[in-house]
Parts: sequence; C-alpha cells; structure tokens
Amino acid sequence: MNANLTVGALLSGIEIAGTLAFALSGFIEATRKRMDIVGAAAVTFFAAFGGGTLRDLLLDRRPFFWVTHSGYVWAVLALVVLGWLWMRAARPSPPAWPMLWADAFGMGLFSAAGTGMAWDAGQPAIVCALMGVVTGVFGGVMRDVLCNEVPAVFSDHRPYAVCAFVGAWAFLAVAVADGPGWSALAAGIAVTAGLRLLALARGWKVPGLGRTPP
Amino acid sequence: MNANLTVGALLSGIEIAGTLAFALSGFIEATRKRMDIVGAAAVTFFAAFGGGTLRDLLLDRRPFFWVTHSGYVWAVLALVVLGWLWMRAARPSPPAWPMLWADAFGMGLFSAAGTGMAWDAGQPAIVCALMGVVTGVFGGVMRDVLCNEVPAVFSDHRPYAVCAFVGAWAFLAVAVADGPGWSALAAGIAVTAGLRLLALARGWKVPGLGRTPP
Amino acid sequence: MNANLTVGALLSGIEIAGTLAFALSGFIEATRKRMDIVGAAAVTFFAAFGGGTLRDLLLDRRPFFWVTHSGYVWAVLALVVLGWLWMRAARPSPPAWPMLWADAFGMGLFSAAGTGMAWDAGQPAIVCALMGVVTGVFGGVMRDVLCNEVPAVFSDHRPYAVCAFVGAWAFLAVAVADGPGWSALAAGIAVTAGLRLLALARGWKVPGLGRTPP
Repeated sequence: MNANLTVGALLSGIEIAGTLAFALSGFIEATRKRMDIVGAAAVTFFAAFGGGTLRDLLLDRRPFFWVTHSGYVWAVLALVVLGWLWMRAARPSPPAWPMLWADAFGMGLFSAAGTGMAWDAGQPAIVCALMGVVTGVFGGVMRDVLCNEVPAVFSDHRPYAVCAFVGAWAFLAVAVADGPGWSALAAGIAVTAGLRLLALARGWKVPGLGRTPP
Repeated sequence: MNANLTVGALLSGIEIAGTLAFALSGFIEATRKRMDIVGAAAVTFFAAFGGGTLRDLLLDRRPFFWVTHSGYVWAVLALVVLGWLWMRAARPSPPAWPMLWADAFGMGLFSAAGTGMAWDAGQPAIVCALMGVVTGVFGGVMRDVLCNEVPAVFSDHRPYAVCAFVGAWAFLAVAVADGPGWSALAAGIAVTAGLRLLALARGWKVPGLGRTPP
Repeated sequence: MNANLTVGALLSGIEIAGTLAFALSGFIEATRKRMDIVGAAAVTFFAAFGGGTLRDLLLDRRPFFWVTHSGYVWAVLALVVLGWLWMRAARPSPPAWPMLWADAFGMGLFSAAGTGMAWDAGQPAIVCALMGVVTGVFGGVMRDVLCNEVPAVFSDHRPYAVCAFVGAWAFLAVAVADGPGWSALAAGIAVTAGLRLLALARGWKVPGLGRTPP
C-alpha cells in the first residue's frame, strides 16, 4: 500500500515533469517562429497533449486526459503567460539538461502508458507498440506541422521515436510475462529513457536514407 | 413562438453567412497558393467545416454538421465553381467589409454553439471554452496547414481566437445563470463579434513573444 | 463460389499492390526531403493508411484496417528497410509504370470501398462520394503535409482526386440500381483507374484558378 503510494507519487511526478517539458518545447518552437501569444498557447497545447489525444482518437477512448485532468489545461496556459513574462524580462535561458531529462522520462512514461492502453484494448502487439510511439512522439509532430516545419523527429537523425519503440517492446515483453502492471511500466520507462539519455550522451545517429548521411 | 421563429431564422442567416465567409477565406488562400480547382475545393471545404468537424471528433458527436445538412457540401462546391468563373472573368475583387462582418458573426455563432455542445456533454468549463475556440478557429488553421503556411491566427497579431475565447466565457457565464439557451447564445455571439469588429476598427494587437513585437 | 473466390483473390491482389504503391510514394517523398529512417517509416505509414484511417475516424468505424490486418504494418516496415538497403546499394530506380498502374487500381479500389462503407452507414450520396475521395487521396495529403509541402494532389494540375470522385459516382449509380456488391465495386474501380490512366496517357490537366493556368 505504502509502496504503491510512493510509486503513484513518483509516476505523477514524472507525468507532470514530462507534460511540462513537452509543453515547453512547444512554447520555444512558437517563439522561434515569431508567433503571437495565441499561437504560442495553441502550439504549447498541441505539444503537451497532441500525442495522447491522437492515441485516444485512434483507440476511441474518452474522455481525453486533459478533459479528466483539466487542471493541466490551466497549467499550460499559466506556462505560456510565465514564459511570455520571462521573455519580456529577457532573462537568460534556463540550462537545457533538466528539460532533456524531464522529456526523456516523460516520453518513457507516455509511451509505456500508451502501449498499455492499446494492450488493454486488445490490439495486436505491433499496434500497441505504434500507439506507444504515437503517444510519446506525435505531440512534437503536431507542434512542428503547426509551425510549418518538417517534424524534427523525422529528420534530425537523433534517436527519439526509436527509443520509444524499443521501450514499448520492453513493456510488452514484461506485460506478456507478468501482466501489464507496475513492472511493465517500469521496464518501458527505464528502457525508453535510458536509451534516450544514452543516445544523447554518446551522440548516436539514426541512419539517413541517402548514400551519404549527414 | 413567433419570436423563436424569428430568432431561428436570424441564426440560420448568420450560420449561412458565416459558413460562406469561412469557405471563401479558403478559396482565396488556395488562389494565392496557385492551387488547381481540386485543391481549391478541398481547402474551401476544410476552411468551412474543419473547425466544427474537429470539435465533433473531440466530443465524439455524430453525425457531423455537413452530413446532416449535406446541402452545405453542394453550396461549397457551387461556391468553388462560381469563384473559378469569377476569376476567369477577371472581375474586380468584391469589397472586404461584408466578408469581415459575416466572418465575425459567423465565428461568434460557431464559437458559442461549440461551447454549448461541450457544455451539454458535461465537460469542464475550460474545456467548453477551448471547444468553442476550436469550432471558430480551426477551420482556418487547417486551411493554412494545407496551404503550407504558418496559421495566420497564430502569428498575425490580430485578435481572433482571443475574441472567441472571451465570447465563450460570456456564453458560459450566462449559461450558468440562465441555462444554455438563446440568451447565452446571444451573449456569446455579441461579445465575440463585437470584440472582433472593435479590434479591427481600433487596430488592436495581440502581444508577440519577443522583446520587440512587430 | 469459385467465381467469388477468384474475384476475392483479384481484389486482394489489387489491395496489396495499391497499398504498396501508396506506401512507396511515401518512402520516395521522405527520401526527397532527406528524412532519416524514422521519418521514412512514419511518412510511408501515413501514405499507406492515412486515407482509410481518416475515413474510419469520420465514419466512426473501428477497428482500423491496419489493426485488423496488422500484417500490413509489418509489410510497410519491411518495405522501409528494403528501400533503405536498395538506396544504400545505389541501385538504379525501378521503372515508373508498374507503380502508376498499381496506384491507379489501388486508388480505384480504395475509393470504391470507401464510398461503399459510407453507403452502408446510410450517409447522403455526396458524403459517400467525399468519403471515397478521402479514402483514395488523403494518405497522399498527409504524406505531403508531414513533408512540409503543399499537397501535390491540390496543386499539380494532374487529374487524381477528380478520377476518384467520378468513380465514386459510378459506384453509387450501380449501387442504387443493383445494390452495393461486386458490380458496383467493379464499376467504381474501372471508372477511377480507367480515367486516371487515360488522363496520364493523354496529358489531361485540371484547370487552375488564375487567368493563365500553368
């Protein structure tokens, strides 16, 4: 009971940190494209909730995460206002590594949770893995499409979706052996986040399609 | 009864005028991007019905507006053919203000109606307001994404989504006090359209994100 | 019975060839945009299944085609890996005409099938025709949006969506007279694919919107 509470609190912490990291990536991208504050709010919102919402549309799940937990919508709006005040004040940029860690663990949690929801809905394994990747990655894809960019996750040669894909299979392996519970969730998060952080530290590259990858 | 009929006819008129204004914005944007008539039809269709359709997908409502009222689909196709003939004949552009007024009242109606549908579905207030904004604004966002542009509503610094957002709260305030009926709808339309027309007349700007807003 | 088996095998063959042609168009476009292999997989997947998935979302049909037949997901992943190896080996490009034929018949099948699904769901005729076009065409639209291009089908002046639209009405005409069975499907496929191949052979153009179409 006590252990479950601790695990629950830990997962909530990862969820909050991950959502804020996703949201912040949207705000930063909107800033780069010189959007106004309305555009920043929209792109931030899509970056934070787009992946989970697309997964829920595909799995026909209602209500959406941000409908059940509508406090998150207020949090994203607050983040936009705070970010705007921060930029007005021309403060120095915060260091990058906390956001990279929050993003890595958040993506791990969202991918594992997305894989688990598809599993609970009785989907085939490859579809479960895809739903995990969609959950973790498509907020960023929507962010980039709305900013009129080729999605970074498709073209920057840095492992991201691949980490979510491998982590989804780690979730599925444990889920087959042991049920889709805490242990599967932990395996998915650990593999996804671990691979992601290792890839960043080692500078691993996703291969390109041409003969001379950049 | 008689009053209700008059109100109903008025709302139908706003709906038709607003849908045509939304559709026309799609046709004009397709022209600017040198699309062919197929592209013009598609972009016109998304501009006219995209916002309401996204709202219905998110709220899991069926059938869509344009399925129930499939005459609107024919009207949009007719608008594309007429617009094409008009451009072939190289007539002078029509004056802009009727379209701005039709757009402002149409957006007011669609936002208030979208807010009301989310309210009827029992969503939290902030989600109702977002659904109102989505209904009024996302046709234009889809139009711009299909035209490979950064959505104008995110970056042109002209108040548009903000008007819909404030109007949605006006709807909600009256709906809490008096039920989600004619009076709430009227409040939503009046606040959204009034703010929008005032913003255009006064040249109000939505703040940017940098230190030197354009 | 025997005839039905033959027809069934023929339709399966068209479905497989059409899906691979759609998928390949995604892979080729991803290559042109210098995406990495993750982007290639995503764009290939959207090109292959995007149109049918959007139709199913709009008609509220579950499970999706690629969930029921999850072997197709593996086939698309295999195509991406094979295409990547092919490009690494710098083999000469394969000839274009098999892909054009597979695409034309595949689009014919997907459009007719999409029209038929909307018909079975009791939609108005114009909505059935639109659903047929969406099924045949929107995979390519999503492919181009993800590649940050104006959708080719909207702007290249080559008849494509128009062929699907006319074929959808051929399906509907036979379906009204004779029921939505094999004969309607055959009519839809024949008209769509025939028009498409004729348009390519004769160099027919879709009219533009300006006074001097390119």
